[in-house]
Amino acid sequence: MVLDRMVRISDSTVRRLSGYLRALDELDPQGAAIVSSQELAERTGVTSAQVRKDLSHFGSFGRRGFGYEVSGLRREIRGILGLSRRWSVALVGAGNLGSALFAYKEFRERGFDVIAVFDNSPDRIGQHIGDLVIEPLARFREVCEERSIDIGVIATPARAAQDVADLLVEAGVRAVLNFAPRKLVVPRHVTLRDVNMEVELESLAFALRASEARGGRRRVEEW
Amino acid sequence: MVLDRMVRISDSTVRRLSGYLRALDELDPQGAAIVSSQELAERTGVTSAQVRKDLSHFGSFGRRGFGYEVSGLRREIRGILGLSRRWSVALVGAGNLGSALFAYKEFRERGFDVIAVFDNSPDRIGQHIGDLVIEPLARFREVCEERSIDIGVIATPARAAQDVADLLVEAGVRAVLNFAPRKLVVPRHVTLRDVNMEVELESLAFALRASEARGGRRRVEEW
Repeated sequence: MVLDRMVRISDSTVRRLSGYLRALDELDPQGAAIVSSQELAERTGVTSAQVRKDLSHFGSFGRRGFGYEVSGLRREIRGILGLSRRWSVALVGAGNLGSALFAYKEFRERGFDVIAVFDNSPDRIGQHIGDLVIEPLARFREVCEERSIDIGVIATPARAAQDVADLLVEAGVRAVLNFAPRKLVVPRHVTLRDVNMEVELESLAFALRASEARGGRRRVEEW
Repeated sequence: MVLDRMVRISDSTVRRLSGYLRALDELDPQGAAIVSSQELAERTGVTSAQVRKDLSHFGSFGRRGFGYEVSGLRREIRGILGLSRRWSVALVGAGNLGSALFAYKEFRERGFDVIAVFDNSPDRIGQHIGDLVIEPLARFREVCEERSIDIGVIATPARAAQDVADLLVEAGVRAVLNFAPRKLVVPRHVTLRDVNMEVELESLAFALRASEARGGRRRVEEW
């Protein structure tokens, strides 16, 4: 039942669930047994009504006037998000960004294991990265079959990203995380998420410029 | 006038402008002189009506039935987004992620110069990163004064991120890009953007799990 219902919940609900999970992750080692919707709301920047509504999608974990049991709710949300199992990740692009993503231990802690790394540069192919050997892109499909890849991460330059996405899709990968600053096209059965650091930086530049245009002095000039 | 109007445009418009700019960046070296709203739409995944509407906020760059002049529109959008000048960035956190961000040359190409790097680890303080020396966090305000920092980038572990944000705000930084998986609180006059790679991965896990629950076979099993 829960699974049947969850397929219809929105992407923004999923993102808020990630936020609640992070808040619960912090509360759990602090020994907190119970958390109120109000506290979850404060820690994640939403209203407590939103917290109650989001969690009500998945059955009633809380008791009115009592709150949610931290470790139980944490386990439930991990289950809902698909984090009670491990996921196999293939990383394409072993440059600066790719190497950093590979070394980013938070992914592993969350259940995402990078089990294959690919590049098309002769300088990188065959080199070790952690306990893996960087494979040529031409071997992607073969490695995918051997190791049953769930998620493909694209950390290539923008110009290569669509070709890589096509290759991933052809090899049967159904979830793609794209770090390249390029809008990618994938078939409907493939889920694509973008992490676009440049767009975020540009929106900061816009906000700073807009603020200056409104006559906001830069604080740095006030010292 | 343009500046006066731009302060009211939405964050999602700004993001689409970033997308149009990226499309124009690709068209320009290919020697394209003119681009239609339809082509910009296809390259950025929106409708051509949306393209025309977004660009109409900033004056009429196009001519009906003719299209937009690529290099002119590119220059205009760069100006609107605040990319016709350079921005000074301070990076806090020189671990895996911070080092990767420092080395990510696309930031520099877009006009964002990392001119100071901070950490609180004695192992890292005093080390070189590129042509900079990693500074202790305690020197943040002082360095900020000397070098006039526009944007602070937080690439610390989650537990340190709010303290770092407070430090940045106290030092007068008005734009913060946060890579730590933690919801940060900043005053209203400070613009905060989050890049949360873990949330994106979790939403992919959710989508895969939902798809499996719907009975979608994993393609990898069909070979």
